[in-house]
Amino acid sequence: MNSSTRATLGVRQAQKLKTRQALLDAALKLLEEQSLSSLGLREVTRVVGVAPAAFYRHFRDMAELGVALVEESLGSLHVMIRAVLAEQQEAEEVIDRSVEAVADHVRRHPAHVRFVARERHGGVRAVREAIAAELARFGDEVAAALAAQEVSRGWSAEDVRMLAGLYVDHLVMTASAFVEASAEEPEEERVIADTARRQLRLISLGRRHWRAA
Amino acid sequence: MNSSTRATLGVRQAQKLKTRQALLDAALKLLEEQSLSSLGLREVTRVVGVAPAAFYRHFRDMAELGVALVEESLGSLHVMIRAVLAEQQEAEEVIDRSVEAVADHVRRHPAHVRFVARERHGGVRAVREAIAAELARFGDEVAAALAAQEVSRGWSAEDVRMLAGLYVDHLVMTASAFVEASAEEPEEERVIADTARRQLRLISLGRRHWRAA
Repeated sequence: MNSSTRATLGVRQAQKLKTRQALLDAALKLLEEQSLSSLGLREVTRVVGVAPAAFYRHFRDMAELGVALVEESLGSLHVMIRAVLAEQQEAEEVIDRSVEAVADHVRRHPAHVRFVARERHGGVRAVREAIAAELARFGDEVAAALAAQEVSRGWSAEDVRMLAGLYVDHLVMTASAFVEASAEEPEEERVIADTARRQLRLISLGRRHWRAA
Repeated sequence: MNSSTRATLGVRQAQKLKTRQALLDAALKLLEEQSLSSLGLREVTRVVGVAPAAFYRHFRDMAELGVALVEESLGSLHVMIRAVLAEQQEAEEVIDRSVEAVADHVRRHPAHVRFVARERHGGVRAVREAIAAELARFGDEVAAALAAQEVSRGWSAEDVRMLAGLYVDHLVMTASAFVEASAEEPEEERVIADTARRQLRLISLGRRHWRAA
């Protein structure tokens, strides 16, 4: 392969990725108003301006596109969670920081958060399973971080994982509440954040008084 | 109005209610495989065996039928929660009983639970709002029951409501987890119940050590 062929391939590959991303973006936009199980392939390709058949060069079917959207949606959340977990601060500050991080994440990726909240129990099994698997991975990651902390000494692995699950569920609930909050009522967002902080504080109190059974 | 006219009206009214219920049942069944925003009126009337126009004698549109399904779904949950809250037992037993009650509720009404989990963030605003309003009512009811308990002495109304919200969210998460658990793996259900009980125990520990800020 000479260098000009390689350059052509590089351009083609870049173009292919660009179209793939355009399909994902168009689908995500359309999914603000409907659910994945009712989204038609032609609706998506029409928005992007490619032939319907072009869809299959990128995804086997709409479920596969949905799974790619799950990865996109939860990938960025993952980065955010890891940053919060890495902080070495007092519990109170970690709580404030994580609620702020969730609010910020929802502000920057509202469509992704809505997509996950909606399709978590949606009509497409492959997507439901991908979301469940990603959230389980979060749980494992949070558990690993919690296990390393002094306050977890003497805890069974099961108990640490149980606590991690509670934190992940709380995060999902808080993100869902933020995304449902109307943009016209900033007060609503403040109440959600305040409630989330108190709840995390209560959970962290329960954690400190937990005696392994 | 003579008694025979009244009897005729009674029969008509009963027939009308029967058709209404048949429409609700048919919709709920169809919604196991799709979301409300993609469900067609004709699909529902076809299953029931009435003309499409007959739909409008019962519901203005599919959103109104969805709201009726929310009432049906959360009404029975309400009865269950009230029974658990009324119990005067030790915390540990109340926890066991409520997790068992949730599991039992999901076993008896899987389609209703799935409907609520899916449409809570679904594409039909009226239905999303009805679910949010019903869950807020639950929260208020749980808060009233918690406030009456000795352990809540000195708590602000806001803190009690925050705790009630945590319990309601936990209930929703647990019910959703049960309904996603595959029927072929009874072990999965046991793990969900066990985790839920531990989480409620941890929350109740946090509650006992909460100091009003």
